[in-house]
Amino acid sequence: MENMINQSIPIINHFSTLIKLENLNDDSLQLENAFDNFVGLLNLHVVKKITHKFEPIGITFVYVLSESHLAIHTWPEYKLLHLDLVTCTHLEKKNVEEAIKQSFINFGVNSFSLIKHEI
Amino acid sequence: MENMINQSIPIINHFSTLIKLENLNDDSLQLENAFDNFVGLLNLHVVKKITHKFEPIGITFVYVLSESHLAIHTWPEYKLLHLDLVTCTHLEKKNVEEAIKQSFINFGVNSFSLIKHEI
Repeated sequence: MENMINQSIPIINHFSTLIKLENLNDDSLQLENAFDNFVGLLNLHVVKKITHKFEPIGITFVYVLSESHLAIHTWPEYKLLHLDLVTCTHLEKKNVEEAIKQSFINFGVNSFSLIKHEI
Repeated sequence: MENMINQSIPIINHFSTLIKLENLNDDSLQLENAFDNFVGLLNLHVVKKITHKFEPIGITFVYVLSESHLAIHTWPEYKLLHLDLVTCTHLEKKNVEEAIKQSFINFGVNSFSLIKHEI
C-alpha cells in the first residue's frame, strides 16, 4: 500500500452503506461511470476493475485501488446498492457522503446512512 | 445474487477484522491457499479472483463470490492483514472466527476482533 512504510500502524478507513436508488437498473456502463466519478471525487486511484453480472439481474463491481478497494453490489429488483470502501488514506465521512450524493444524482439517490467502521 | 428474488429485502452479512499474523510474508501463493481454504470452510463460491502486488510489499486479493465478495489487504511490514467479507447468506460470527483460525493457523494467528457490521 502507498504511504504506509513510515507509519507505526497502517491507516485503515472503512465505510459502508446500503443505498436506495429510485432509478437503479442493470446498466453496467451507467453504473461504472458513477463509480468512476465517486472514486475521482475522493482522489482515489484505480489499479484494476472487475465486473460480474449475475443471472437474472444484479452486478458486482470491484475496484482495486492503490489505497485499498471499493466493492459494490446491486439488487435492481429492490432498487438497492451496497457500497463497501476500504482505504489507507484518511477520508472524512462528510466527504464520502457528498461524493455518493454527487455520483448517484442521476439514479435518484434517497437518504442513506453511511457507516464509518471502527477497526 | 443468488437466493435473492423471493425475499422482501436482500440478506447482507458484513464482517471485517484486522489480524496480526506472526509469520505473515509476501508469498501470494501461500496466502491464496489460506483464502481458498477460508472460503471453502464457509461454503462460499468463488466467481473471480484478482490479486495485486504493491511495491515494495503488500498484496491485495479480491474474490468475487456468488454470495458477494471477500477483499484482503496485507501489510507484511506490520505483520497485519485486513479481511473484509460481505455475503448475501447468513453466516454465524463464531463460524467466521473459526474459519479464520483454521485458515491462518500456519501464519501464527494471534487474537483478533471480528466485527459483524450493522447494515
